[in-house]
Amino acid sequence: MPDTAISPTRAQDYPEWYQQVVRAADLAEQSPVRGCMVIKPHGYAIWERMQTILDRMFKATGHQNAYFPLFIPLSYLEKEAQHVEGFAKECAVVTHHRLELGPDGRLIPTGKLEEPLVVRPTSETIIGAMYAKWIQSWRDLPVLINQWANVVRWEMRPRVFLRTAEFLWQEGHTAHATREEAVEETLRMLDVYATFAERDLAMPVIRGPKTAGERFPGAVDTYSIEAMMQDGKALQAGTSHFLGQNFAKAQEIKFAGPTGQEEYCWTTSWGVSTRLIGAVIMTHSDDDGLVLPPRIAPTQIVLLPIHRTDEEREAVLACCKSLAADLAAARFGEEPLRVRIDSRDIRGGDKVWQHVKQGVPLRVEIGPRDLAAGAVSVSRRDRGPRERASMPLTQFVAEAPSLLEELQSGMFERAKAFREQRSVRLSTRAEVLDFFAETAEKGAGTRGGFAFVHVADDPAVLAVLDPLKVTVRCIPMDGEDEPGSCIITGQPVRRRSVLARSY
Amino acid sequence: MPDTAISPTRAQDYPEWYQQVVRAADLAEQSPVRGCMVIKPHGYAIWERMQTILDRMFKATGHQNAYFPLFIPLSYLEKEAQHVEGFAKECAVVTHHRLELGPDGRLIPTGKLEEPLVVRPTSETIIGAMYAKWIQSWRDLPVLINQWANVVRWEMRPRVFLRTAEFLWQEGHTAHATREEAVEETLRMLDVYATFAERDLAMPVIRGPKTAGERFPGAVDTYSIEAMMQDGKALQAGTSHFLGQNFAKAQEIKFAGPTGQEEYCWTTSWGVSTRLIGAVIMTHSDDDGLVLPPRIAPTQIVLLPIHRTDEEREAVLACCKSLAADLAAARFGEEPLRVRIDSRDIRGGDKVWQHVKQGVPLRVEIGPRDLAAGAVSVSRRDRGPRERASMPLTQFVAEAPSLLEELQSGMFERAKAFREQRSVRLSTRAEVLDFFAETAEKGAGTRGGFAFVHVADDPAVLAVLDPLKVTVRCIPMDGEDEPGSCIITGQPVRRRSVLARSY
Repeated sequence: MPDTAISPTRAQDYPEWYQQVVRAADLAEQSPVRGCMVIKPHGYAIWERMQTILDRMFKATGHQNAYFPLFIPLSYLEKEAQHVEGFAKECAVVTHHRLELGPDGRLIPTGKLEEPLVVRPTSETIIGAMYAKWIQSWRDLPVLINQWANVVRWEMRPRVFLRTAEFLWQEGHTAHATREEAVEETLRMLDVYATFAERDLAMPVIRGPKTAGERFPGAVDTYSIEAMMQDGKALQAGTSHFLGQNFAKAQEIKFAGPTGQEEYCWTTSWGVSTRLIGAVIMTHSDDDGLVLPPRIAPTQIVLLPIHRTDEEREAVLACCKSLAADLAAARFGEEPLRVRIDSRDIRGGDKVWQHVKQGVPLRVEIGPRDLAAGAVSVSRRDRGPRERASMPLTQFVAEAPSLLEELQSGMFERAKAFREQRSVRLSTRAEVLDFFAETAEKGAGTRGGFAFVHVADDPAVLAVLDPLKVTVRCIPMDGEDEPGSCIITGQPVRRRSVLARSY
Repeated sequence: MPDTAISPTRAQDYPEWYQQVVRAADLAEQSPVRGCMVIKPHGYAIWERMQTILDRMFKATGHQNAYFPLFIPLSYLEKEAQHVEGFAKECAVVTHHRLELGPDGRLIPTGKLEEPLVVRPTSETIIGAMYAKWIQSWRDLPVLINQWANVVRWEMRPRVFLRTAEFLWQEGHTAHATREEAVEETLRMLDVYATFAERDLAMPVIRGPKTAGERFPGAVDTYSIEAMMQDGKALQAGTSHFLGQNFAKAQEIKFAGPTGQEEYCWTTSWGVSTRLIGAVIMTHSDDDGLVLPPRIAPTQIVLLPIHRTDEEREAVLACCKSLAADLAAARFGEEPLRVRIDSRDIRGGDKVWQHVKQGVPLRVEIGPRDLAAGAVSVSRRDRGPRERASMPLTQFVAEAPSLLEELQSGMFERAKAFREQRSVRLSTRAEVLDFFAETAEKGAGTRGGFAFVHVADDPAVLAVLDPLKVTVRCIPMDGEDEPGSCIITGQPVRRRSVLARSY
């Protein structure tokens, strides 16, 4: 029997470890529909936590939710040339609107549509068409709308949460009177994402603009937040796009200014998806399974009654109920603590390991001896699975929020230290080749990292990076400028970029 | 100029009145995609209120949320014969998974799928396929899962909220070990819907089973809640289906009982949709526009500052802010009051009328004179639009929750009285013909109602009702049995049914 709950371990086979963590935590699984996942209750509860927090942040920054059609007519997609080129290869196309039972008892599509419809891969075009109707005057601006929705991008090599044909996301779409306002909005939402990632997901991120080749199809500028996974690869965790007037011109989104002259709007779009669940898994989990940051854990504290006789059971359960009520009255962040009593009649060891694998931040065991002593046995998910500390019950109630805060900030610090340790500053092409070549030799997923390098946004750079399967993730925007020369082309550049393999 | 904000009035042209209320309240509009609506921020905010309350009720009754694929392979639909027959005529079918740009610059679908996929019209078949994998033993039961999702049922004659190709809904899907448990679940969720409709939407409903012809395709029993709109027509506001073992047999959802024998599960499904927004509009609104029950109103109280000079403006706004803070600290139902200050620089009259048309329950005007007197002018949406009552500011703060409660219960009572007034008990075929024929002559939508009649579940009854465009809405289940003979066939029946025209 392996001495870790997850087999293989991260070191043995990182991609397979990921699949096993997802399975052991009962988060999601592949459905019989190619590329589409089923998000199971525990996985969906994490998504609900993310939604609740993000939705609050969107509303606090002046956005409202709305809902736009799932289908986009082909003629809408055609309007923005880069956009259609970017998405054409992964569009699910609806061509018929009814079914008939054939003579062999099989269903046949009938009712052919005059114009086929695409299942939205993103909604710039359909939302833009509505904005063109809604916006007449500068008084109608800004329009600040977000949509929670499913989208479809056909995917040949699906990986649960990270890359699926259908996924859930939010997409913000805003229209502004000036370039400045639109740029400000783009950066504001990038900041919202960065704050959410670091504060709530305990996941350090690097913010910055993308290079031309990595931009959203049709965008003037794409900004992303990039996180490092435990195999050293980058994961793009959210994007915010400054669309300039590209979509406004393609779709005639115009407004009359104060003096009556007609102008095109400046638009933005920004989104994060269920991919964030994959990011959280790969940032924090260990060889015993999922580790959840308390702020997004559906259950923050699980109470595990231990008893042999019916009499013991009654006393212990009563204690659990009163403890749960006391804890639920306390707050962590802006909300009541989320506590669950697990009184299922299954083996204690199995039960404990299930909560370990599901990533519950704090496990609290209460047996007759604890009861007699007025104590509880507390185990932290960020410590060894067999470690536990006995503490007075009243002390635990008082300290539970700060314990959770300690876990939350400890996870962030640990992830940040990991990233720092796997980050290097390189100055030559040879160093870059060596850094990434070395990692490939040591086996996929177990080595690698972020290389901070001066590179130009130039095809010659891509020609060097492509064979390494390395990309420019973004040009980090925090801190001072640090001018240098591109290590490939020699062109002057203002800042270092971050290079990495990626998901 | 008409003396109502909405033209035509209900009496003049009910269907057109409905469209105009939706437009004036800025709730939704038709999109360029045939049959698909855009739910605008105000409409979506109402849906969010409904979701929040229902989601809490689902979780309190032991359900968890999850998410299943948008697409359903044709072979899954084929498995349950009645089910496929019920939905085949309204399925959007995905046949290709990519697009190519043709020589004329138009996009052409390519990448033909081996098996076409249907965009879910409902998810029994895809969810059942997962349950068949997940359920092995009686210990795995019950499975109690709900999904918030979009669904598509192709629609030739769309009407915003009431009948659209795409709509938003929730669909609960549960699996049980015994028939009794599944029936109990079916009725429990019917009750949840009835409670929600009456308590939160202030919309009285009649609960009961449907007749055979009106059942969900594949169900053993379908129960619905039926509400009366202001034109006397019925609107089916929610359904709960006992599916027996039909889907379990079609999909091999089996479990091993305690003694090891294999049995088929008993399943249920239940749902409500954005149609409820249409129901709320048609139950409560008047000739001045939308009237929202406070419990689902996104804004319950709007504060309208009135001022001429900058000095007045400052003093009045300060008062509004402090009033808003005081109100937000109070609670209505389980939540803080939802208050908004509307300080936009537009004509006061336009502003007031906008809130009337948007259905805000309480409007509070505050001007320099009110300020001096320590008073506010309060207008209730359930009274005439020009009526207002001055009251001391402190009294308003103290009484705002009970005022809202008064509006909420008053709306329910008014709707109930309306329904009672339009309900009749009929004993002969001639009376039925007369009741519904008469309403047809007086013009569509202005007369009609519910007829409580003894009818058998028999084709002969439908033959009489069909020409009248009347259906058996349900067999009301509240109150004692009242045996009688079918007025058409003479067969003995246990209770009266409710007959009506419907949406």
